[in-house]
Amino acid sequence: MSKTLIRAMILPMTGPDDFYPEGEIAIEDGGILSVGEQGSAPADFVPDRIIDLPNDVVMPGLINAHTHAAMTMLRSYADDLPLMPWLETKVWPFEGKMTDEDIYWGTLLALAEMIQSGTTTMLDMYASMDKVAEAVLEAGTRVVLARGLIGNAPNGERAFNENVELVEKYHGAGNGRLKVMFGPHAPYTCSGEYIQKVKAEADRLGVGIHIHVAETEDELKIIQEQYGKTPVQWLNDLGLFGGHVVAAHCVHLTEEDMQILADKKVCVAHNAESNMKLNSGTAPIPELRAKGVVVGLGTDGASSNNNLDLFGEMRTAAFQQKLKKDSTVLPAYEVLEMATVGGAKALGLDDVGILATGYKADLISINFDQPHFYPRFSVPAHLVYVAHAGDVRTVMVDGEIVMEERQLKTIDVKKVCQEVEQRAKAIAQGLV
Amino acid sequence: MSKTLIRAMILPMTGPDDFYPEGEIAIEDGGILSVGEQGSAPADFVPDRIIDLPNDVVMPGLINAHTHAAMTMLRSYADDLPLMPWLETKVWPFEGKMTDEDIYWGTLLALAEMIQSGTTTMLDMYASMDKVAEAVLEAGTRVVLARGLIGNAPNGERAFNENVELVEKYHGAGNGRLKVMFGPHAPYTCSGEYIQKVKAEADRLGVGIHIHVAETEDELKIIQEQYGKTPVQWLNDLGLFGGHVVAAHCVHLTEEDMQILADKKVCVAHNAESNMKLNSGTAPIPELRAKGVVVGLGTDGASSNNNLDLFGEMRTAAFQQKLKKDSTVLPAYEVLEMATVGGAKALGLDDVGILATGYKADLISINFDQPHFYPRFSVPAHLVYVAHAGDVRTVMVDGEIVMEERQLKTIDVKKVCQEVEQRAKAIAQGLV
Repeated sequence: MSKTLIRAMILPMTGPDDFYPEGEIAIEDGGILSVGEQGSAPADFVPDRIIDLPNDVVMPGLINAHTHAAMTMLRSYADDLPLMPWLETKVWPFEGKMTDEDIYWGTLLALAEMIQSGTTTMLDMYASMDKVAEAVLEAGTRVVLARGLIGNAPNGERAFNENVELVEKYHGAGNGRLKVMFGPHAPYTCSGEYIQKVKAEADRLGVGIHIHVAETEDELKIIQEQYGKTPVQWLNDLGLFGGHVVAAHCVHLTEEDMQILADKKVCVAHNAESNMKLNSGTAPIPELRAKGVVVGLGTDGASSNNNLDLFGEMRTAAFQQKLKKDSTVLPAYEVLEMATVGGAKALGLDDVGILATGYKADLISINFDQPHFYPRFSVPAHLVYVAHAGDVRTVMVDGEIVMEERQLKTIDVKKVCQEVEQRAKAIAQGLV
Repeated sequence: MSKTLIRAMILPMTGPDDFYPEGEIAIEDGGILSVGEQGSAPADFVPDRIIDLPNDVVMPGLINAHTHAAMTMLRSYADDLPLMPWLETKVWPFEGKMTDEDIYWGTLLALAEMIQSGTTTMLDMYASMDKVAEAVLEAGTRVVLARGLIGNAPNGERAFNENVELVEKYHGAGNGRLKVMFGPHAPYTCSGEYIQKVKAEADRLGVGIHIHVAETEDELKIIQEQYGKTPVQWLNDLGLFGGHVVAAHCVHLTEEDMQILADKKVCVAHNAESNMKLNSGTAPIPELRAKGVVVGLGTDGASSNNNLDLFGEMRTAAFQQKLKKDSTVLPAYEVLEMATVGGAKALGLDDVGILATGYKADLISINFDQPHFYPRFSVPAHLVYVAHAGDVRTVMVDGEIVMEERQLKTIDVKKVCQEVEQRAKAIAQGLV
């Protein structure tokens, strides 16, 4: 049994007043034994290794509650275009050419970037999810896998079967680091019948469901024309809600929609940067949180962001709401909650998201010994309004160090960058 | 005469199609001799030093067109409060306790952070500006100094005289790295008479004027009640415009206001993050640019941002406009223009902001050999939508290297961080 002691400033995210300026965390076999001031570890705890980070803040690893990891392959391939031409002439043709291997390498690149920016867990919706699972098992991070299901597409049935197989093969794999959900894409790409079939199968297998909901005004129009309802009301009437559902975006909601999400305990994955860049709108996050809805933060895919950096996402999430409402909404600590414990709850993970006895040792350290972190008036404000991805020094998942002094321990970063460069450029050239 | 050759990917910001994937820049005595593909330097150019950065993008140093550098002292001291209580109970009492020496150290900290995030020039409006000048001379960066003038305050006359002395002492100092402007704070803190006096003195001394304009809706109300006009129309009627004026914020403008700014060649310093965080609003930047108004980007002070990172500012500036209008406005290259050549023009500097023969060697390199910069489809999109402050590797100002491999060459960063920590905490404790 490996035993590690980390000494640092510790922000455990167990409450706004909890902070240990000279703290320590005792870790045994991937789990947290104790968190507190120095000297608080059990007297009989003899660590194999002591990691001294007196100028770092250690906090829970960040949780990306909505992404399409392999879309790193399309990073900066097409920007600043209107939505439909962007999708129809750029994104979809490119994705149509991507192979299983492309998705494997694109996901590994995403994981390298995520680790370097402090993200230890992601909820990923894409295709070739067995390749995503393979990449995550190698990288050593935590994931919830959701096969993206376009019910209306010719491969709708095959994708459904793949999702079932994914549950059987990977739910609980990697010492519990891998979980699986169903991923019906959206109410406008899946029929009501298809969504109900997914819901029944998810219930049968005891797993959750991840779906895009109310992302754009166009979606509202389409669903209104087709069904005479809002997307949330349509999905509710179909019986989708009630179990564990993570709804991404939720930008355009009525008061009734928000109440349904709250009543049915639907979790929301908020994607501030994607919603701004694609002109989708400003999601009613303070209103949802006021109703008790669990909200996590997501980056969306790297074709609409264009990075996977949750530090940037936290800052943008705060600024966007302050712009819309007033300067007091979403204070720094609440934004940190969304990126950690909120994301964990949204993903249905009850053993990550905070640093406390019995939780998994998924944690990151941020190098506070830099000019932009002085003076040190508020650690939460520094983390949300000041920090950037490059400030992350150390990353641990399930008790294993996956990055140290910014060096990745589980990914051959040179090889991954070269593979993605060659593969992405080859696809783009084939489309000219 | 020192001679340096830099080999790298080069984005000179001389036009959207100008990029040298294997480029070189010949630098002699602080000035750029040539920029082009490798082998383009003059045949008789024999460098003392060759800097090879094959995986870096070299571009002009970023220009911060509006800041209050020493407000790093208040970083994360107070956030998430309504505007007036924030100013009245936190910012102003703290500032009231700051000494000349506090401003010196706070400015040095700001300069350390700016260099580390790729900023080589700032337009700084604050008090004790001789201390700011001292800090900039030490740090080796470029600055336009504007003494903040609250005409209505008891020290209005003294501050005016300080600004005059500042021009006489520092305009053109440091091998031309220092310039001076007058800094009447805003139309609601200076009388019309005071503003006219400042304008006359600025004209007499041949220097520009920096002023906050139309930042908040409250300001609009105040000026409307006092003068029956918009802030822009009031300042125009006073005769302030016509010479070189940099107007910060300009969030709330009528069509007529924008036409006045365009006709009178007033330059605008846009502060996207501050405007969002303080709920000021979204400035009509695409509209101003369409009318030919020169726009630069600023971070504002670190008490309302809370960093001085222009990479974050670029991303936010793009996202904010896309959210308001549509996904096509402010494409990446235009945002880069605002942060470089736009800022230079706004500050009245005709020898920085692009990399070309005859310009000063103010440049930065960004380490593109990292996962988040793959694949390399678009350098401008990567710089605006992907890059963060920590990606800056090398910074040169006036031909001198001020940062190399992220190590500051001109600032004792440990000392500065310690001084600011002690001084800021002492002020805060005195106010409890």
